[in-house]
Amino acid sequence: MTDRGMRAVGSVCNAMDSAQQPAGTSTALIVRNETPFNAETPAMLLPRAVLTPSSQFFIRSHGEVPNVNVQQYRLKVGGLVKNELLVSLADLYRLPCETVSATVVCAGNRRNEMSRISPIKGVGWDSGAIGNAVWSGVKLYRLLELAGVQQNVRHVLFEGLDHIHEQQASTYQVSIPLSKAADPNGDVLLAYEMNGEPLAPAHGFPLRVIVPGFVGARSVKWIQSITLSDCESDGMFQQHDYKLTPGFIDAETFKRVWREYPAIQEMPVQSAICFPPNGYKHASGTPLTVRGYAHSGGGKRITRVDLSVDGGNSWSHSAILTRGTSSDAPYAHDWSWTLWEVAVPSLSTPCQLACRAWDAAGNSQPATVDSIWNFRGLLNNAQHRVRVLPSASL
Amino acid sequence: MTDRGMRAVGSVCNAMDSAQQPAGTSTALIVRNETPFNAETPAMLLPRAVLTPSSQFFIRSHGEVPNVNVQQYRLKVGGLVKNELLVSLADLYRLPCETVSATVVCAGNRRNEMSRISPIKGVGWDSGAIGNAVWSGVKLYRLLELAGVQQNVRHVLFEGLDHIHEQQASTYQVSIPLSKAADPNGDVLLAYEMNGEPLAPAHGFPLRVIVPGFVGARSVKWIQSITLSDCESDGMFQQHDYKLTPGFIDAETFKRVWREYPAIQEMPVQSAICFPPNGYKHASGTPLTVRGYAHSGGGKRITRVDLSVDGGNSWSHSAILTRGTSSDAPYAHDWSWTLWEVAVPSLSTPCQLACRAWDAAGNSQPATVDSIWNFRGLLNNAQHRVRVLPSASL
Repeated sequence: MTDRGMRAVGSVCNAMDSAQQPAGTSTALIVRNETPFNAETPAMLLPRAVLTPSSQFFIRSHGEVPNVNVQQYRLKVGGLVKNELLVSLADLYRLPCETVSATVVCAGNRRNEMSRISPIKGVGWDSGAIGNAVWSGVKLYRLLELAGVQQNVRHVLFEGLDHIHEQQASTYQVSIPLSKAADPNGDVLLAYEMNGEPLAPAHGFPLRVIVPGFVGARSVKWIQSITLSDCESDGMFQQHDYKLTPGFIDAETFKRVWREYPAIQEMPVQSAICFPPNGYKHASGTPLTVRGYAHSGGGKRITRVDLSVDGGNSWSHSAILTRGTSSDAPYAHDWSWTLWEVAVPSLSTPCQLACRAWDAAGNSQPATVDSIWNFRGLLNNAQHRVRVLPSASL
Repeated sequence: MTDRGMRAVGSVCNAMDSAQQPAGTSTALIVRNETPFNAETPAMLLPRAVLTPSSQFFIRSHGEVPNVNVQQYRLKVGGLVKNELLVSLADLYRLPCETVSATVVCAGNRRNEMSRISPIKGVGWDSGAIGNAVWSGVKLYRLLELAGVQQNVRHVLFEGLDHIHEQQASTYQVSIPLSKAADPNGDVLLAYEMNGEPLAPAHGFPLRVIVPGFVGARSVKWIQSITLSDCESDGMFQQHDYKLTPGFIDAETFKRVWREYPAIQEMPVQSAICFPPNGYKHASGTPLTVRGYAHSGGGKRITRVDLSVDGGNSWSHSAILTRGTSSDAPYAHDWSWTLWEVAVPSLSTPCQLACRAWDAAGNSQPATVDSIWNFRGLLNNAQHRVRVLPSASL
């Protein structure tokens, strides 16, 4: 066993211990749901570092954190394969360990802005259901090569160990296209480390899929099986949730027409202002440094972030960008977010700040939330707006 | 020589003959510039067929159509390679011939809408500087494998045979990243056939690069050399043209800050209404079938096209989509446009129609042109609007 393997297995006891503590005891997170446990990062903390610490990383759960017996744990790789695999953690630690920097973002990030237009069921996220980390583990394509992919495979299904107590599902099951899963440069990872430490239980211990550039819903935690198939997952999280619909489709109509809408995979371009917070009080005429994050799906680089100090009527400031780590390799993608800041020399208050990011494909963000409102509250990538008020002390 | 090779070489004489005729003699195109010759397809013709006939395909030239001696023609593959190649047309015809369906779109398509906000230099395109065809030839990655790519290569430079008489350039030179060029699934092609026939001179005879999913400016016509490099092309068409800038950057400012803006490669999501044309007269209260195209860069599928009959205030119609041909292979991308139509049962006039497309990454089009105006008039992918007037006969 490699040193890394020893280190990872050695820390299993600690990880198991902390699995007994409710993840909600972290004071850094804003709890949105106790059961299942869902909590986001206070947005102000996000632009402080390119890597989000594990203790500050948002937690999205559909069920309870499973208790895993690490000796008995086996990852099954089956379906349309030539050789079915049952992979132990020790097996995984013996395979080449690779590291990928990637942002994980919930499809419902910023749902609360949509809920203000018309109520939406689902976790009430502000702009903190996003985080960026380095993930280490085994690239999925290596396991697929070991298993042998049959010719008619088109999709790779993931199933978690967590038990879902609500909705029409007993486990968490989703899928991604084979073209992403089997591409060495697609960087899909079976991660057992996050930011150089063993995965915490809330983040998927002992093993989590990381699908860079895709919606967080595909980065399955507590993965127990990988199934190769000619069809995508027929589970509700693939077919009935995490689909983007027009504003004129309601929940009832969707029950008839869900087949017409594809599952969300890659993410659109987005950005948010993390500092100042909404309602911030600031002395008029004095400088202010505005900070935030920007990210686009598919590994597309953020090329520009614009800031408006008049609610989006004019765009007069270009942000300075700090990129997440990305490799210098010729096939490297920008899976990590970009942090940005704009030093506004003199700000009149009251005012509304607005930001918009542009990615390498020339896509940018819609001006308003109402143009993209959907009944599930997904993929809110509207320009983000923050009101700044006059300082009370002046 | 293969049959295909015979057919292609056999038709060289015809192609050479038609090279003597000014391309502008085609009555199907709207000529925007005589010298260099630039002409677009009347938009109404575009949604009539998934494949745009060669005679109706828009023509973008920066110089004159070169006369090529097909016996002496050699494509040079050099720079940071292990073996420099000099490839004749016969050599190319002996290599495996592959076919890719792909839309080619000019970065300046729909510039005229931007020019109405503030004047812009450049060819005055409406929405017809776009077309879709099947292209046949040799995949670029095969030539790169034959040449041997050195380790520090990051970019692949293309140079055309056409002489440029304006601006600071003598030939047309651009580049694309190696990650696109060397990817078998990136489908970059050295095409000698278009829609099953030899390339017409105006479309790049004898050989044209097709870079699916990228801006048309990278699909170099009359290619004479391919150079592997650690840097992108330093030519003006890479560094000083075809860059997307914020609205507050003018031509003078750009001369100082051009390094801050990346060259356009992949394209954003876009769509246009091709029928009815702007100003169309229609009997109020009667049905109307609206037709158009939609396309996104990077091979991303169009998932949805919405139509508004009240100028974008509400979006109540989903279009029926007709996809361009795409392979069933697991790595297949949607390089081809999607044609769409909406049968509006009863239309009140006067009104403004508006369309917006969504791609598989959840990106859509900005509501207004002014939010994306730039001094070069590039990448206008705003929602497209068409006024429908009351029929005069009622």
